[in-house]
Amino acid sequence: MCAVDLQHWLNEALANHEKWTAEYGSFTPHSSLQADPALFGSALAELQDRLRDNYPFFHPRYAGQMLKPPHPAAVVGYLSAMLINPNNHALDGGPATAAMEREVVSDLATMFGYGEQHLGHLTSSGTIANLEALFVARSLHPTRGVAYSSEAHYTHSRMCGVLGIEGFPVAVDGLGRMDLDALEELLKTGKVGTVVVTPGTTALGAIEPVNLVLDVARRYDARVHVDGAYGGFFTLLAGTDLAPEPWEAIGSCDSVVVDPHKHGLQPYGCGAVLFRDPSVGRFYLHDSPYTYFTSDEMHLGEISLECSRAGAAAAGLWLTLRLLPLTRDGLGEVLAAGRRAAVRWASIIRESEALELYQEPELDIVTYFPRTDPLTLSAVDAASHRVMQTGMNAPVDPIFLSVARASKGAFAARHPEVGADADGARVLRSVLMKPESEDYLDTLHARVLSLL
Amino acid sequence: MCAVDLQHWLNEALANHEKWTAEYGSFTPHSSLQADPALFGSALAELQDRLRDNYPFFHPRYAGQMLKPPHPAAVVGYLSAMLINPNNHALDGGPATAAMEREVVSDLATMFGYGEQHLGHLTSSGTIANLEALFVARSLHPTRGVAYSSEAHYTHSRMCGVLGIEGFPVAVDGLGRMDLDALEELLKTGKVGTVVVTPGTTALGAIEPVNLVLDVARRYDARVHVDGAYGGFFTLLAGTDLAPEPWEAIGSCDSVVVDPHKHGLQPYGCGAVLFRDPSVGRFYLHDSPYTYFTSDEMHLGEISLECSRAGAAAAGLWLTLRLLPLTRDGLGEVLAAGRRAAVRWASIIRESEALELYQEPELDIVTYFPRTDPLTLSAVDAASHRVMQTGMNAPVDPIFLSVARASKGAFAARHPEVGADADGARVLRSVLMKPESEDYLDTLHARVLSLL
Repeated sequence: MCAVDLQHWLNEALANHEKWTAEYGSFTPHSSLQADPALFGSALAELQDRLRDNYPFFHPRYAGQMLKPPHPAAVVGYLSAMLINPNNHALDGGPATAAMEREVVSDLATMFGYGEQHLGHLTSSGTIANLEALFVARSLHPTRGVAYSSEAHYTHSRMCGVLGIEGFPVAVDGLGRMDLDALEELLKTGKVGTVVVTPGTTALGAIEPVNLVLDVARRYDARVHVDGAYGGFFTLLAGTDLAPEPWEAIGSCDSVVVDPHKHGLQPYGCGAVLFRDPSVGRFYLHDSPYTYFTSDEMHLGEISLECSRAGAAAAGLWLTLRLLPLTRDGLGEVLAAGRRAAVRWASIIRESEALELYQEPELDIVTYFPRTDPLTLSAVDAASHRVMQTGMNAPVDPIFLSVARASKGAFAARHPEVGADADGARVLRSVLMKPESEDYLDTLHARVLSLL
Repeated sequence: MCAVDLQHWLNEALANHEKWTAEYGSFTPHSSLQADPALFGSALAELQDRLRDNYPFFHPRYAGQMLKPPHPAAVVGYLSAMLINPNNHALDGGPATAAMEREVVSDLATMFGYGEQHLGHLTSSGTIANLEALFVARSLHPTRGVAYSSEAHYTHSRMCGVLGIEGFPVAVDGLGRMDLDALEELLKTGKVGTVVVTPGTTALGAIEPVNLVLDVARRYDARVHVDGAYGGFFTLLAGTDLAPEPWEAIGSCDSVVVDPHKHGLQPYGCGAVLFRDPSVGRFYLHDSPYTYFTSDEMHLGEISLECSRAGAAAAGLWLTLRLLPLTRDGLGEVLAAGRRAAVRWASIIRESEALELYQEPELDIVTYFPRTDPLTLSAVDAASHRVMQTGMNAPVDPIFLSVARASKGAFAARHPEVGADADGARVLRSVLMKPESEDYLDTLHARVLSLL
C-alpha cells in the first residue's frame, strides 16, 4: 500500500544484522529457546487472526482518533535496533542509539528554536514527558502550583496529583483555548509557578496562544511549559500554513513536550521532553555526582526519570528523520496535507445542508454534527452516535469516525441555535492525520452523508 | 544463530498484515510519505553501520550487564502489532492487544500466586511500574513513608522524591539483603507504611527474604511491595532450583513488579505491575466515574498512570508466552540455564588460584575479582578494571564483562583478608542471563584467566 518496499528493507535490515552478529563467531543456540516451527506457525496465525480486531488505522476510511501506523522507515529502524535491544538508559547499554537520541533531540530543539545548550531526551510517552516537565517545575517552584486550561490533556491534573502539587484549571474561551483574563486573575494570586499551554488541544485541535500566555506568565514570574504532544510538529508549518506567533514563541518557553509517536510517524513508545535551560539537569541528580549536563558524554539515564528505555525508539526516529527531515518540505509536507484536508473538509461541511461544523478546525481535527430536526442537543447526540456506529458496522464500505462530548455551555457558545434540552451532546470528531485523507475526502464526506 | 528462522516468520507476519490491509480496499499512497530507494538504502546502511557500535549482547562472550536480545517470537509479535500501531491506553485504540495484555497479566498473576481478582497492567518499564506501586502505597498510607534496602534499585528513592513521600533505606546483611532487625527497628517508629522487598537485587542478585519481611511488615500494619523487576521470573524455579519460601510469599504481598524486558525475552518497553487487591484501581480514577475495575471491559488507561502505550509490547509478550509458557519447563528452563551457569562458574572460580568469588551467586549474577599480590582493595580495583578493559578491547576473541563497586565495609564483611587501603574496590560482575552462557563457561573462564 505504501510507496516504500517494506519487505525489502526489513530483509535488508535482518541480513545486515546477521552479518554483524556472525563476526563474533558462532555458538550453539540453547535448546530452551527453540520453538517448534509448527507451534510457531499456529501461534503466529492466531496472533494475526486476533490482530484483525483493530480498526484500519492505516486507511483513509479511518477518520477517528489520533491513530495511524508508523512510517516504513520507523519500522525498519525500530526493528534494526530491537534485534540488538540496546538500553538508552546508559552509554554501556546503547552507545549507538544514545548518540542517535542526542541527535534527534537536537533536531527537535532546533525545530522549536532552542539553542545548542538545551537539555532533553526521548521518553516512552507524552505523559511521562509531561511528568518530567512538571517535576522540574516543582523543583523550581516548590510552593507554587501549575495552571492549565480546562481543555488541556487530563494528564496534567493527574501528574500534579502524582507530584503532590496543586493544579489549577483555567477557563477557556469560545474556541476552547485558555482564557487570558482568567489566567491573569489566577496568576495574580501568586499561587501559580508554571503555566501549561497547549498549541493543539487533544479534543478540538485548538491552538492556545503560546505567545500571549508567555507574556502574561512572565509578568508574574511564572514558567511556561508547552504541551505539544499532539500539536508540536505543526511548528513546521509556522509562517506558511499557520500564523507564526504561537509557534515562534515556543523557543522562549521553558520546556516543551512533543510526541514523535503521534505526528512524527513513529510507533508508540516515543515521546520527548526538552528544557531550554540545561542546568535543570541538576534536579535529576541521584548517585552520579560527577555528571556534566552539557557534555556529550553524559548518560541519558542521568537526565531522565525513567531507567531502562528502548534504544530502538531512537533508531526508528533517527532513520525516519534522515528521509523526512524536520523541515517544511520534509515532515512538514505530511502535516500540511492533514491540515489542508481539515480545511477543505470544513468548507465542504459548511456548504452541506445535512452537516454542521461544530468549530472551525485550527489544525487537522474536524468536529461536526448532523443537522437534526428538531435541532436539539439530545437529537444531535443520538444522531452523532448513530452515524459513528452505523459507519463502523457497515458490512460493505465501512468508515470509522469518533465522537467527542461537548458540554451544554460549550455548545451554546458556538451554536446557540441548538435547543439545549440536555447537559451536552456528542459530536463527530475526525483526526485527519494521515496525508491520504486529503485525496479521500470526497469519498469520506459522501459516505458520512449516506449514513444520515 | 538462533534455532528459529526469524526471516521466515517476519516475512510471514508482513504477508499476513498485507493481506489484512488489502481487505479494506486500495488507496493512493501520499507523495509526502514516499522515500527515494537510493536514499532509504544509504540511510539504512548508515544506521546499520552505526549500530555496530554495540557490544554483542546476543553472544555468550558478552557476560556483562543485564542485556540480551529478545526472543524471535517477541520480535515477530512486536513487529506484527507495530505495523498496525495499536494504543493500549483505550479499547478503541487497540482492542486485540488490550485483550492480550489482560491475558499475559493474568498469566503473570498466576505465576505469582495472585487470585483471579488481581489488578495489573503492562508498563513501559520497571521504573514506571514501581512508581505506580508506590503511588498506590502513598494513596493508602498518605502520612507514612517507604522502606527499601540500601541495595534496592535507586529508582525507589527517586520515585519517593517524585511522589513527595519519605524514603527510608534499610541496612543490609553480609550478603547484601535487607537486614530484618534493622527493618523492625524502623517499623517500630510507625513512619513506614510500605516495605519494598527485592528478590534479586540488581547488583548482586541477592534474594531478599520476602516471606520474613512480610511477617515483620504485617506485625506493623505495613504493606509489602515486591520489586521483582529483575528477579521476578525466577519464581518459576521455586521449589526446584531455588528454595521456595521467598517466592511463594509473593502471592501474599500487596503488589509486585516484574520486567518482561529483562528475563521475559522481550525487547525494552515491557514492564508490569500487579496488585493483589483490585480495589486499588479507585486511586487511578480520573474522569471515568463509571469504571468497574474487575470487569473485562475496562479500558487499561483507566488503571494506569501512563496514557499512550504500545500495544505491540503486549503482542510480543503474548506470542512469546504461547511458545514458552510461564512454567518450569517453559520459560523456567531459560532461567534455569542461567542459574546453572552461575552456580557452575562459581565452583570453577572457587577452585581457581587466580580468581576469587566476591559472593556466592543466588540467581544468575556472578561477582568475582582477581587475587592480586598484594591483596589490597586498590590492587583488586585496578586489576578488575584492567581485565574488563583488556577483554573488551582485544582485537581477537574479545570478551565483555562489567564491574560493580563494592564499598570498603561490604568488602570487609565478605573478605576481611583483603587489605583495606581504599574506600572500596570495583569487582567483576557478570549477568549470565543468556542460556548459552551455560555451554560457553569454560571458554569464558579460560579467557578471563588469560587476561590476568
